[in-house]
Amino acid sequence: MTRTVSAETTIRPVWWNDQAPPHGAMELIDQTRLPAELVHCTCTTAKSVWQAIKRLQVRGAPAIGIAAAYGVIVGLDEAAPTDETWPDLLKKTCDFLSTSRPTAVNLFWALDRMRKRAARIGPCPWPQARALLLEEAHKIRAEDAAMCRAIGEAGHHLIPDGGGVLTHCNAGALATSEYGTALAVMYAAHSRGRKFTVFADETRPLLQGSRLTTWELLQTGVDVMLICDNMAAIVLRDHKADVVITGADRIAANGDVANKIGTYGLAVLAAAHEVPFYVAAPSSTFDLSIEDGSAIPIEHRDAAEVRTVLGRPIAPADVPCFSPAFDVTPARLLAGFITERGIIRPVTREKISAVLGGQAQ
Amino acid sequence: MTRTVSAETTIRPVWWNDQAPPHGAMELIDQTRLPAELVHCTCTTAKSVWQAIKRLQVRGAPAIGIAAAYGVIVGLDEAAPTDETWPDLLKKTCDFLSTSRPTAVNLFWALDRMRKRAARIGPCPWPQARALLLEEAHKIRAEDAAMCRAIGEAGHHLIPDGGGVLTHCNAGALATSEYGTALAVMYAAHSRGRKFTVFADETRPLLQGSRLTTWELLQTGVDVMLICDNMAAIVLRDHKADVVITGADRIAANGDVANKIGTYGLAVLAAAHEVPFYVAAPSSTFDLSIEDGSAIPIEHRDAAEVRTVLGRPIAPADVPCFSPAFDVTPARLLAGFITERGIIRPVTREKISAVLGGQAQ
Repeated sequence: MTRTVSAETTIRPVWWNDQAPPHGAMELIDQTRLPAELVHCTCTTAKSVWQAIKRLQVRGAPAIGIAAAYGVIVGLDEAAPTDETWPDLLKKTCDFLSTSRPTAVNLFWALDRMRKRAARIGPCPWPQARALLLEEAHKIRAEDAAMCRAIGEAGHHLIPDGGGVLTHCNAGALATSEYGTALAVMYAAHSRGRKFTVFADETRPLLQGSRLTTWELLQTGVDVMLICDNMAAIVLRDHKADVVITGADRIAANGDVANKIGTYGLAVLAAAHEVPFYVAAPSSTFDLSIEDGSAIPIEHRDAAEVRTVLGRPIAPADVPCFSPAFDVTPARLLAGFITERGIIRPVTREKISAVLGGQAQ
Repeated sequence: MTRTVSAETTIRPVWWNDQAPPHGAMELIDQTRLPAELVHCTCTTAKSVWQAIKRLQVRGAPAIGIAAAYGVIVGLDEAAPTDETWPDLLKKTCDFLSTSRPTAVNLFWALDRMRKRAARIGPCPWPQARALLLEEAHKIRAEDAAMCRAIGEAGHHLIPDGGGVLTHCNAGALATSEYGTALAVMYAAHSRGRKFTVFADETRPLLQGSRLTTWELLQTGVDVMLICDNMAAIVLRDHKADVVITGADRIAANGDVANKIGTYGLAVLAAAHEVPFYVAAPSSTFDLSIEDGSAIPIEHRDAAEVRTVLGRPIAPADVPCFSPAFDVTPARLLAGFITERGIIRPVTREKISAVLGGQAQ
C-alpha cells in the first residue's frame, strides 16, 4: 500500500494538473483500485473521462460533477477546436459525457453549468474561451470544497476529545472535491488536535466503508476502526461512539433522509441507545419539493450484489435476494443536520425552511 | 450446484454409512465447500475425523459432538483392536479427537459419553463392544434429532401462513443432527404445507447465513431471501417478517442470550418495530449456573476476519478492527424461548426455572 498523503494534506479524488503536457489534463484517484493500491489516472480524451465515470473510478455525486466539468476541457483539448468550432464541439462533448452515468444528478448539473457558461462567453477565440471554461470548472470544484469545509466547521464540536464517532458508507473526501460531508466534520475535529476514534461500518453490499472510508482516514491520520455492519449495535450499546454522523443522498422538506441502505437501522439503534444521530449534507441535498420520505423512490439493485463480495460468490447462485440500495430515515430519529449554513436542530420542517431560507418552497 | 435432497428429505451433516467397506464408516457434508458444491466425505481414519472437525468441514456444537462419537468407532476400526486392547485404544482415540477443537463443549461431552459407555461395557470381545459403542453414537445422534424435532413442534405455530420470518447465522440442520434449532421451527411449519418466506441475514464476518442457511433452505424447498445484515431493519419496518427466530450459544438463568454477533442489534430492531423475537434452543443450552449475561465471556476474533471475505481482502491490510464473535441479548428483548420442552414465555427467571425444572440451580 502506498501512503503518499501526509496528515496535513487533504485527499482530492479528481483535480486538474496544469503541468500535464501539452496543455494540462484531468487526473484522478482510481477508486476501483482502492484500498489495495493508490493509482493516479490521467485523462486526456473524452472517452477516458467517460469511462472513469462509467467504471466508478470516480464516484460520489459532487466528485462526478467535478470530473464532468474538467472532462469538458479534456474533450475540447482532444478535439483541437478552432475559434469557430469550439461551441459546437463543447455541445458534443457535453452530450457524450452525459451518457456515462445517466442516474447521476450532479453530472447533468455540472455539464449544464459548463454549457451555460459557454453561452455567456459567446463567440470568441478558443484560447480565451478555454481559459474561462477552465476557470468555471475550477470554480465548481472550489465551491464544493468551501461547502465541505464549512460543514466541517459547523459540526466539529460534536466530536469530543477522547471520544468516538460512528459512520456508515463513504461520505468522505473521495466522494466530493475534498474533505467530504460526514468525514469533513471528523477532519475538522482532527485538524484541531482532537483525539477520537471513527468506527466505520463496512457497508455491505458494495463495501464503501471498508474500502474507502478506512483508506482515507488512515491516509489522513485519523484513528479508525473497521466493523461489520452488524457490530454497530454493540459499539452504540457500549458507548464507544458519542455521536453517529452519516451523509445523505436526498433530504425531504420535513427532514426525512434517503441514504445508503443500513442508515435507517443505524438511526433506530442510535435512538435506542440515546446516541445522537446527525446527517451532514450541503443545502443542495435538501429537496424542498419533496414533502416527506415516502415520496423518495428507492432503487432496488441487482441481487448479484448481495450474492457476491467484490465479484466473488458467497451464496448459492440462484438464491433470491432483497437488495434495496437506499433507505429512508424518518426525521424524528435525527438529532440534527450539519450543513454549510450551520446546524439545523431540532429537525422540524420550520427549522429546515428557516435555515435554508433562500430555497424555501 | 448439486440439488440431491428432495423436499421430503431432511439434511444430515454427519451420518454413519453401514455400507462403506469393510465395516461401515462416518460420512459428512464438507461444509467448507458449500454452497458452491455438495461434497460428501468418508472418514475411515481418526486423523480424517480430527481434520474434518479442525477444518470446520463439520461445525455447530451438536454436529461436532456427533462426529466425535462416530469418530471413536472410526478410530478403533482403523486400529483393528483385539478383545484385550480396545479399551486402551478407545482412550487414545478419545484423547486424540479431543484436541481437534478445544473450545467445542459438545466435543468433550460426546467423547466423555463414549468413554463412560465403554467403562460400563467393561471387558468383553471387541465385536460386541463395537456394536454397543456404535449404538451409543447412534443414540447421541438420535437424541439430538428428537430434540430438534421437538423444538420444531413447539414453535411452528409462530410462523403464519403467508408470512415471513427473519433469522441470523445458521441454527439449522447443518449445525446439528438434522432439522436444527431455529430452522427446525421453519421446517416444521413447512412440512405442514404453510407458505412463508425466510429472510436470512448473511451474517458477517463468516457468512454462515449466505453460505449455509440459504443453501439448506433451498435444498429443502423453503422460500428464502438473502439479505445483507444492514437490510434487516427495513424487513422489520415493512413487516415482511412476522417473527424473528435465532439460535443461541449460551443462555443465562435470567434469560440473557449469547449468540452470534449481530443478534443483539437484531433484537433491538425487532423490539422497535414490535416484531416478536424468539430464541430456539434445547434445554442443554441454558446454563443456570450463570446468573445473567454479564457473566458470559465474549470471544474477540482476529481482525483479519473483518478485513477479509472468504480470505480475500476488502480493506487496507493494516486497518484496526473491532471483532466480537458473539454478543449478549438481554432477556427483556425476547418474546420467548422455543425449547424441546415447549415455549418459555414470558422470559423470566422463574418461568425458565419452572420449565427446565429438572436442572434447576
